Amino acid sequence: MSTRTRERKARRKPSLSWTKMSFQQLTNPVAPVNWVSQEKLDKLHEASMWILENVGMAFMDPQALDIWEKAGAKVDHKEERVWIDRGLLMEAVAKAPSQFTWHARNPEFNTIIGGNHIAFNPNSGMPYASDLDRGRRPGTLEDFTNFAKLAHSLPFFQIAGAPFVEPQDVPVSQRHLEKMRVMLTHTDRAVRDVAHGYIIPEDEVAMAKIAFGGDLPGACIGGTINVTSPLRLDDRMIGGILAYARHGQVSTNTPFIMAGATSPATIASALAQQNAEALGAIALAQLDSPGAPVIYGGFTQNVDMRSGSPAFGGPEGAWGIFVGAQLARRYNLPFRASGSLTNSKVADAQAAYESQWTMWPAIMAHTNFIMHAVGWLEGGLVASFEKFIIDAECIAMFVHMLNNFVIDDDELGLDSIAEIGIGGHHFGTAHTMERFETAFYDPGLSDRQGFDPWQNAGGQDAAQRANGIYKQLLENYEAPPIDDAICEELDAFVERRKSELVGVDLYG
Amino acid sequence: MSTRTRERKARRKPSLSWTKMSFQQLTNPVAPVNWVSQEKLDKLHEASMWILENVGMAFMDPQALDIWEKAGAKVDHKEERVWIDRGLLMEAVAKAPSQFTWHARNPEFNTIIGGNHIAFNPNSGMPYASDLDRGRRPGTLEDFTNFAKLAHSLPFFQIAGAPFVEPQDVPVSQRHLEKMRVMLTHTDRAVRDVAHGYIIPEDEVAMAKIAFGGDLPGACIGGTINVTSPLRLDDRMIGGILAYARHGQVSTNTPFIMAGATSPATIASALAQQNAEALGAIALAQLDSPGAPVIYGGFTQNVDMRSGSPAFGGPEGAWGIFVGAQLARRYNLPFRASGSLTNSKVADAQAAYESQWTMWPAIMAHTNFIMHAVGWLEGGLVASFEKFIIDAECIAMFVHMLNNFVIDDDELGLDSIAEIGIGGHHFGTAHTMERFETAFYDPGLSDRQGFDPWQNAGGQDAAQRANGIYKQLLENYEAPPIDDAICEELDAFVERRKSELVGVDLYG
Repeated sequence: MSTRTRERKARRKPSLSWTKMSFQQLTNPVAPVNWVSQEKLDKLHEASMWILENVGMAFMDPQALDIWEKAGAKVDHKEERVWIDRGLLMEAVAKAPSQFTWHARNPEFNTIIGGNHIAFNPNSGMPYASDLDRGRRPGTLEDFTNFAKLAHSLPFFQIAGAPFVEPQDVPVSQRHLEKMRVMLTHTDRAVRDVAHGYIIPEDEVAMAKIAFGGDLPGACIGGTINVTSPLRLDDRMIGGILAYARHGQVSTNTPFIMAGATSPATIASALAQQNAEALGAIALAQLDSPGAPVIYGGFTQNVDMRSGSPAFGGPEGAWGIFVGAQLARRYNLPFRASGSLTNSKVADAQAAYESQWTMWPAIMAHTNFIMHAVGWLEGGLVASFEKFIIDAECIAMFVHMLNNFVIDDDELGLDSIAEIGIGGHHFGTAHTMERFETAFYDPGLSDRQGFDPWQNAGGQDAAQRANGIYKQLLENYEAPPIDDAICEELDAFVERRKSELVGVDLYG
Repeated sequence: MSTRTRERKARRKPSLSWTKMSFQQLTNPVAPVNWVSQEKLDKLHEASMWILENVGMAFMDPQALDIWEKAGAKVDHKEERVWIDRGLLMEAVAKAPSQFTWHARNPEFNTIIGGNHIAFNPNSGMPYASDLDRGRRPGTLEDFTNFAKLAHSLPFFQIAGAPFVEPQDVPVSQRHLEKMRVMLTHTDRAVRDVAHGYIIPEDEVAMAKIAFGGDLPGACIGGTINVTSPLRLDDRMIGGILAYARHGQVSTNTPFIMAGATSPATIASALAQQNAEALGAIALAQLDSPGAPVIYGGFTQNVDMRSGSPAFGGPEGAWGIFVGAQLARRYNLPFRASGSLTNSKVADAQAAYESQWTMWPAIMAHTNFIMHAVGWLEGGLVASFEKFIIDAECIAMFVHMLNNFVIDDDELGLDSIAEIGIGGHHFGTAHTMERFETAFYDPGLSDRQGFDPWQNAGGQDAAQRANGIYKQLLENYEAPPIDDAICEELDAFVERRKSELVGVDLYG
């Protein structure tokens, strides 16, 4: 160990309780909440079939139109519009796997997506970054890298790579290369990006092959597809779906519906439309590449009628998640929702309750892939370092809760209850002494001290404490092992593609 | 209308969205979450029966010991200890009603407790009050009265009266009189207090009779009983149980268990002990007064092993609520949990997420009576005016969510989806115009504006906005109608009892 390394280790603060938790394939021990009856669910299904058969959906890409035509759908090439019969649609959707493994560079961190499994994924794609020291500013590659370090530092992101924040200091044509390089080298857990056009997925697959040391062992990367509601998949999104599907990589097909704006002003119609759009995108992937890993995504909220903004973290969003998951289950598809959604501009009480109003429905509904599990502020415009830590505390609590408690003779400890009897306390019993260090959830952020010790320690609120914690995690970050040869090959690829892509329209 | 009244009305700010909501008997549209299997639930039941049969429970009141002895239990009068056979216990518990009506001074506001009904009740019994202007200080009757006004102002507290904050400026022997007078005159919805000793319930029944204008029509008031864990009901609590039961009034029998302190350091043992203690208290009420309205209360958390404080709003507390409700259902008893629990010292992100970690399990578990639904800070030591408003937003959202959305042809609006077709938006359609004013939840506190308008409006966080809202509600408060004669009779009763109780030990 070099002197410098020793000094750095000596300076470190004690590690957080979170970092003692281990990576795990998380499952939900309780049955999913079915928010609506089977009859009502069928009515939503029927409505979405009616939409695809009678209104149809735009697929603004010649390859997609050809795929649909070949499959037997009615296609209007000029209008780029397809009318899809429910028999054809359901046959294609049925080819999708009900669950699949998302591979990590370190196979110990492979994660199943689907069934009663849950995977958490951090914040994605915000144009701005913020922290209490520097405020709100355009995201940079440094911010991106810091979020990547934080995500790797915490064991509970099964898919640890994400397009955390937009690195606005990198030219647009180079961003996917820089982002993927940071993700693949800063974590050995699974990663994902957005998926726009044909070029980005091809580059990212090539980089994943370098990082994985050859052919991909299955689904290793993937991207989010946002249907441009109402009922329209543009060429960027279709490129992402098809390019990833052809490589056996993941597309997360997520209509972004604001009821009252991009759908009628009811959650019933928004969900029917969501179902039509998500299944339309998934069917396209399956017709092109049967068996390709796909996720049914839900991101349905209402438009706030006062401000015109999407209403995040409210009752309508909760319904959207509960019933979206029920719909995905109806088709045996993995379901994606989000976790830390909020309209708040700061990491305050509103930010926290709106995020819990998103996360609790997601967990109870059996969401398999929880994107944006941390870090949101301001309707997704801002990736906040403090909010990342605040949300991380809640994820750590969910991990603990879902691991459930044991009910058996040892844990019941009836002998110990008899020993203490009436009155008294259980602090010093053998039963307690065996357990007290690990018995209960140990918070990383929450302050449970009384008023005086809290005030004497500085009287900081949760956001102020989170500021210290994110810096501590960055200071303690340790990169996972990676061969120098792989790094050099990635660097060479990135440099070559950077120069090749100068002036190229990535989505052309 | 007097000039002064007109002026006051003219000064008022526009009313909050919450105040447009109407009182309702709330029900849960989805099945309760059963967190553990029937087999595990039975194991908890068996363990609690073993405890009552083999360890027994202290009932520190001669009347209670006589009741148990007469019923056939083994009693040690010197130790004040009772061993209860499961047959005797379950026979007594079976006499309790599975649901009952909690009557309000205005019968429109009568509320069913039990089944799939949900009733919210505000903060109770905090020694301190706080707001952003004056900070944390001992509670006063003025604070108590202000909380009573806030609770009546918001339509979603089915049981609107509660011992909000301890009026420390009133002598102890007079507090129940002052509190009950404020509650009965500041709301015409149902009220409750704590229930300690024989004197307080008798006085409160007498005051309720004045307010209700004669004999009580059923359960009209009630109080919380906290078992002094482990396994001990003291004379104060027993007085409350028996005095209320004999008048057909409500006792909410709630063991306050901190696993690792007042029970062994596991949630399994804490729940077994909770079950023994709650059923022991309920059986006593039923043996004395068969059919008396009782509620099975759960307040089980762990002790935080770092600070020694109770750990509120964490995973263990969530388990406690989920499985506590399952146990209460097993015995067909109404279940009580809490809503806004937190260890935070300020109305920050921690306060909000811990409260949602209490409220979401309570709602999903089918809790019938949700006490402390608003206002907690600092482990229940502080009643915060801002936190009251922050939590109120979440309750309003739960009311909206539980009212559910409609799935029918009108709401699906397929014609409107066809009319807009591909792309475009739904802002101006007939379907939207018919609905947009009432389609969605309209927040009272949450700010959904973009960054610039929010900043231009002062850039306030949720707690700062809550400060303005609570003052606005107080300014707009309108007392419900009450006969002058009733007020005079209440005043006369209070004054008479105040003088009679000088120097009297209320619990003697």
